[in-house]
Amino acid sequence: MSNAPAVPHFPAARDCDPRTLGWMQGSPPPADKRIQFHDTTSYRFPQLRWSFAHQRQLVPTVAVAHAHALGMPVSAKNLPSIQYTALGGQGGGDWANMMEATYTDALLVMHKGQVLFEHYGGVMTPSTPHIAMSVSKSFMGTMAACLVAQGQLDEHQRVEHYVPELKASGFGNATVRQVMDMTTGIDYTENYADPQAEIWNHMRAGGVMPRPIHYDGPTHFYDYLPRVRPLGVHGEKFTYRTANTDVLGWIVARVTGLSSEALLSQLIWQPMGAEHDAYYAVDSVGTAFAGGGLNTSLRDLARFGELMRNHGRVGDQQVLPEAAVRDCFAGADPAQFTANGPPTLPGWSYRNMWWVSHNPHGAMMARGVHGQNIYIDPKAEMVIARYASHPIAANIGNDPHTLPAYHAMALALL
Amino acid sequence: MSNAPAVPHFPAARDCDPRTLGWMQGSPPPADKRIQFHDTTSYRFPQLRWSFAHQRQLVPTVAVAHAHALGMPVSAKNLPSIQYTALGGQGGGDWANMMEATYTDALLVMHKGQVLFEHYGGVMTPSTPHIAMSVSKSFMGTMAACLVAQGQLDEHQRVEHYVPELKASGFGNATVRQVMDMTTGIDYTENYADPQAEIWNHMRAGGVMPRPIHYDGPTHFYDYLPRVRPLGVHGEKFTYRTANTDVLGWIVARVTGLSSEALLSQLIWQPMGAEHDAYYAVDSVGTAFAGGGLNTSLRDLARFGELMRNHGRVGDQQVLPEAAVRDCFAGADPAQFTANGPPTLPGWSYRNMWWVSHNPHGAMMARGVHGQNIYIDPKAEMVIARYASHPIAANIGNDPHTLPAYHAMALALL
Repeated sequence: MSNAPAVPHFPAARDCDPRTLGWMQGSPPPADKRIQFHDTTSYRFPQLRWSFAHQRQLVPTVAVAHAHALGMPVSAKNLPSIQYTALGGQGGGDWANMMEATYTDALLVMHKGQVLFEHYGGVMTPSTPHIAMSVSKSFMGTMAACLVAQGQLDEHQRVEHYVPELKASGFGNATVRQVMDMTTGIDYTENYADPQAEIWNHMRAGGVMPRPIHYDGPTHFYDYLPRVRPLGVHGEKFTYRTANTDVLGWIVARVTGLSSEALLSQLIWQPMGAEHDAYYAVDSVGTAFAGGGLNTSLRDLARFGELMRNHGRVGDQQVLPEAAVRDCFAGADPAQFTANGPPTLPGWSYRNMWWVSHNPHGAMMARGVHGQNIYIDPKAEMVIARYASHPIAANIGNDPHTLPAYHAMALALL
Repeated sequence: MSNAPAVPHFPAARDCDPRTLGWMQGSPPPADKRIQFHDTTSYRFPQLRWSFAHQRQLVPTVAVAHAHALGMPVSAKNLPSIQYTALGGQGGGDWANMMEATYTDALLVMHKGQVLFEHYGGVMTPSTPHIAMSVSKSFMGTMAACLVAQGQLDEHQRVEHYVPELKASGFGNATVRQVMDMTTGIDYTENYADPQAEIWNHMRAGGVMPRPIHYDGPTHFYDYLPRVRPLGVHGEKFTYRTANTDVLGWIVARVTGLSSEALLSQLIWQPMGAEHDAYYAVDSVGTAFAGGGLNTSLRDLARFGELMRNHGRVGDQQVLPEAAVRDCFAGADPAQFTANGPPTLPGWSYRNMWWVSHNPHGAMMARGVHGQNIYIDPKAEMVIARYASHPIAANIGNDPHTLPAYHAMALALL
């Protein structure tokens, strides 16, 4: 017997394909093969390898309407063969190794606007919406950045100016910009390994986590957010907290008079030529979970990456204000990021709810906590869209493989 | 003061447009303008004028995937101007009067395969899915009839042969045919005005009605159906009971190995050229509510009517077995219908979960309890698809206007 601390052991990705494990098959599925919302089985591993692609069966949702799909040309070239070395020397290998090591559900690589590689595993298909989780934030951040660029939203205004209900909360005297870059000082923790973390209260309020039977807490997002207390100083340092995104969603709803799903459809989904409706999980009063509730097909996720890579243009059409897109890629001050940024992202920053690398390629990412990614490398003219269901709700399991593998691919495509 | 019994009074349709009433507008909607699932406001009138078009925000759902939309040609002709006399001499008037009197949300009239008239009111749009309620049954009945015609399902077999779990229930020794035509003898009442009616237990089990906080009843449809007790004799007379449809859905799932949503997509939605995904409400283990949980766009409802009118063909393609469609139009024995059929439908019968008029035009209907309709008149080459949100959960409010108005239109189109 060793004295080493217990390290959670998870089956390899190849050994937890939800089809071969038989989850949710049969009428009804056998009791030990059921994945349900109320008993939290939908949040357990390996069940989440199924549930991440079946969110609308588990919670109420609202559609983000697409209109006319634009084609996605497939390249005549193949994906270059690359090798990567994992961060911290934790192995490495080829692209297939990265995919297996990080519980990849679906992956798409675009180069110069053409599909180089497309893969769907497990229960994923080209039309299956998968939960984007915090990749959702980059959509809301981009929409807010567009409103700022168009002069509809003043990033220097205080939150309470737009949402008086937040006046007494930790957000009230923060600026919109501080919310957009997550430098607010609030009493809110987001360690998914801690059952007492505030994020769980946030999610229970929004109905995206089951509630105890005698629950008497807030019953929707707008009921929860005013309860978040101040802690620390605004504008000093980046701290990753999902509540900021739902506050931003609230501000954007007040400014535009539109729901998140309506604005996303009008501003991005329809103009970029999405080929499927997306959807958001909603709370009991119909509010989209802007911070983590978006579900999309893989190709539509890649289309958004392409839209950003192309400076907000689709063909000759300037769909998003170029200044807003430029502001995302420019990033924020990496010095503000150092204290609380993930150790796998040294020198990065967080701007408009995008993770900005400041590397020589000018790459930036949208990141979800189980390995969902949009990775945009402007210099390599590369966009990677990836859905995953990594057992660990933190990117410490993904980054050591994905980051070097993505960059190695970018170098090969230069 | 009169001694007359209290008659419920409802505002006129024009006075309860959900947009002008301001339901679910704002961030968040004001407390008195919220429509929620858990407090049953989504089932109240006039809130249901909004909620019938927003089911997926209220309950978990699953998509019925469409593929390539087929066009729906618009006729150069206009809707003929007609007058109708309401059944029982309760007024009447023109088509607009019928629409107003019956709380019509959306209505489409097709003649010879072309759109003569199309209307969307309230919160309905051409792409909005509306709850079909018991119109859902005609989809399941048709699918089962197709399986019978193809020899995959034996209508003479007992239910327990396909679903052993139902052996001890009221359904066990009924035949599949008796389930398909709702002549089973079971202890199950479906008077929506009676809070003790068994239908509510059925819906609570499926999660499509809220449950009391200390609910300890069945938690999904397959948990509920085996508890339905026998009462009376099978095969003697028609009695309208939704449980039959969910039993049929179970049988069909066992025979095909497919979920209701997968079979509907493969057998009908994709081949008929639906232009939108439909969706079903699902229970806690992902089972579609076959008896009442389907939501579709209006045009897709009309497409199904056209598919039936065209003997199961789409253009030159025989999509559904012609024998199955013929068997629906042929109907069952009206003598079995008389005792328990609605008084507004004298001489009708119920076959494969379609309501068959046996009138000289050979018309048949799919009927939802708040006025949802597909009305197919083969002689007039007419299909009417209608969504409505009548305040009374029974067709006594709709039939006196819709039935004579539909028939008058058919006569005008001959």
